[in-house]
Amino acid sequence: MSSQFEPIAAMAMELAKLPGIGPKTAQRLAYHLASQPQENVRALSVALWEGRKAIRFCETCGNYSTGDACPICADPTRHNGQICVVRDPRDVAALERMHEYHGLYHVLHGTLSPMEGVGPDDIHIRELLARLGTEEVNEVILATNPDVEGEATATYIARLLKPMNVKCTRIAHGVPVGGDLEYTDEVTLYKALEGRRDM
Amino acid sequence: MSSQFEPIAAMAMELAKLPGIGPKTAQRLAYHLASQPQENVRALSVALWEGRKAIRFCETCGNYSTGDACPICADPTRHNGQICVVRDPRDVAALERMHEYHGLYHVLHGTLSPMEGVGPDDIHIRELLARLGTEEVNEVILATNPDVEGEATATYIARLLKPMNVKCTRIAHGVPVGGDLEYTDEVTLYKALEGRRDM
Repeated sequence: MSSQFEPIAAMAMELAKLPGIGPKTAQRLAYHLASQPQENVRALSVALWEGRKAIRFCETCGNYSTGDACPICADPTRHNGQICVVRDPRDVAALERMHEYHGLYHVLHGTLSPMEGVGPDDIHIRELLARLGTEEVNEVILATNPDVEGEATATYIARLLKPMNVKCTRIAHGVPVGGDLEYTDEVTLYKALEGRRDM
Repeated sequence: MSSQFEPIAAMAMELAKLPGIGPKTAQRLAYHLASQPQENVRALSVALWEGRKAIRFCETCGNYSTGDACPICADPTRHNGQICVVRDPRDVAALERMHEYHGLYHVLHGTLSPMEGVGPDDIHIRELLARLGTEEVNEVILATNPDVEGEATATYIARLLKPMNVKCTRIAHGVPVGGDLEYTDEVTLYKALEGRRDM
């Protein structure tokens, strides 16, 4: 029947593409939506599509943005000479939840991973170097994840910045090795930021 | 940031309304969708809304349908004098996956539940009685869930049908008591159907 009744099968097929949603869960969600009032499903559908359409990237830092500049780059009080380098926008969100960092960000949109064929040109390293030429930067804080790719990326960037005479720090291993920045609590993130060391 | 960046917050808020999706999972899904190509999110959005719009109910049995009659009611070979009474359309789907039942269905869209204020007029019992007057019915198979509400509903309908001289059977307790029809495997469902007894 799931393969026979086209609309529910179509809903389940798309839902099953979401991470962590298997075919059984997708079908259950599809049946749930089928039993909901049309306007509720419309609200979900519109939120997803309108939300995705509204998402752009900040032209400076690569963070999510609704305009040319993200709210952080657009805020003059955040231009304090610090740039915090992270893997993706959700890491910006995690660090912002801490409320203890007052500088700017740079989103790499990935980490170096020779295994998966991700090299320096595939992530936004060139854009970071360009910012060092145009912005007044006193410190680059490398806040990539404390896993193999994150460490490798931090080491790579630190080596690039060495001849440019910019202070370059790495967040402390207050965050558990192998963990994920996104799920780290605010206190641990703050300790990690405080304990940063030259590299 | 999740509360700051409007489009992702809006996506997460709607996703969190789905059953089994908590706020953390909803945010993770929203971030995932934000990182997907626009056309993928559009495909999901369209599938959900178009799917929901296409879903109607069969005018005869109450099963999901895209037209006036569901594929089962529209199939003349299924009119064999048997009507299988279930709680909702996903139970029809579960029984159809068994490939062993060749009659018609009647979907109640609920079960009697005095605790939740669901009485006989709130579910499609009257429609079932009407069918017995117009269709040639030899047997009504009560396949509501083997839980308290399902048993009560089956007993109630059996009592109503008694004076109408229609054979009325209940699926056997091959399905585990307290279980859910939707998650029962095909073999158990077949045993349950085979072992049905008069009531």
